[in-house]
Amino acid sequence: METLQKTTNGVDVSRLHGTIKAIEENPSIADFKFRATNNWINGAHNVSTIKGFYGACQEDPSRDESLTLIADEPDVLLGTNNGPNPTEAVLHALAACITTTLVYHAAAKGIQLKSVSSTYEGDLDLHGFLALDLDVDPGYKVIRIKFEIEGEEELSTRQKQRLLDVGRQFSPVHSMISKAVPLEVVLN
Amino acid sequence: METLQKTTNGVDVSRLHGTIKAIEENPSIADFKFRATNNWINGAHNVSTIKGFYGACQEDPSRDESLTLIADEPDVLLGTNNGPNPTEAVLHALAACITTTLVYHAAAKGIQLKSVSSTYEGDLDLHGFLALDLDVDPGYKVIRIKFEIEGEEELSTRQKQRLLDVGRQFSPVHSMISKAVPLEVVLN
Repeated sequence: METLQKTTNGVDVSRLHGTIKAIEENPSIADFKFRATNNWINGAHNVSTIKGFYGACQEDPSRDESLTLIADEPDVLLGTNNGPNPTEAVLHALAACITTTLVYHAAAKGIQLKSVSSTYEGDLDLHGFLALDLDVDPGYKVIRIKFEIEGEEELSTRQKQRLLDVGRQFSPVHSMISKAVPLEVVLN
Repeated sequence: METLQKTTNGVDVSRLHGTIKAIEENPSIADFKFRATNNWINGAHNVSTIKGFYGACQEDPSRDESLTLIADEPDVLLGTNNGPNPTEAVLHALAACITTTLVYHAAAKGIQLKSVSSTYEGDLDLHGFLALDLDVDPGYKVIRIKFEIEGEEELSTRQKQRLLDVGRQFSPVHSMISKAVPLEVVLN
């Protein structure tokens, strides 16, 4: 007789179902606020510090130490390569989010994954950033994404496509990049 | 007699003007392609590797080593805190990009900055990510941003607001978050 496997793809599925049940009983558990603080160092070099957040009806106390993310530009863009540039960080955020969403939903369905990898390429025209042509948008014109998914047991192309579709549909960052997010900006 | 100051805010302004002149002579110099590759580790833990990119009419050879960005989730979201979560990485990308855009444009105008810092908070409803309510968008409902800017010489509120406006207007990531970016996704 098999023992009940509670963890799939490294996700504690028992806790996941417990979270879902708790949210159904008290919807405000689902309200999260994530935060970052950024400080300019020099040139294109700046650092974001990430620690506290609000979620599950409280300020979360679980992170003992701050997490940091470093940005810089490569030499051709007058930086010193201390970290990926901000537009590369967007590709990371997008990749990480589709992947995590796909992995969690697969776990909830009992689909054991062996590997998930993906590549991203975004086209950017510096006429926008440099204010050389106000008709050119400073952001990516398009982002091309390729996914490879392997299951512990062989998955059909249809099953992989379904996982990828779910990963996209419920990914917070996929939503933020493919739709407009309202930004409220004030000067202190 | 003052010597010509070529570097302002850590930005080599002579090279910046050289880049602008080169793009005016050959617009294709402005076409960049940035890339990332992401690999799933376990659970919410995955890693993006960033190295090569295309720009200034060539594959850029200047990065000797890969840069990496790590994603994970905190305990309450069933992760192990190896790195900021993907939605926190979005806040970093946005922060880094507005800041760099502001700093470069200030440098081009000869405005010497002393400090730039900013805070970000995004509201997210897990009903979206968990597919508990298809009417709830998985992404941030809003991102609130506060900026503090100090010049080496005192800047008026109007001057600071103008710097912030320029930082927003020409920031690639600000554009990507506040507008929709087309995504082309394929399964390999």
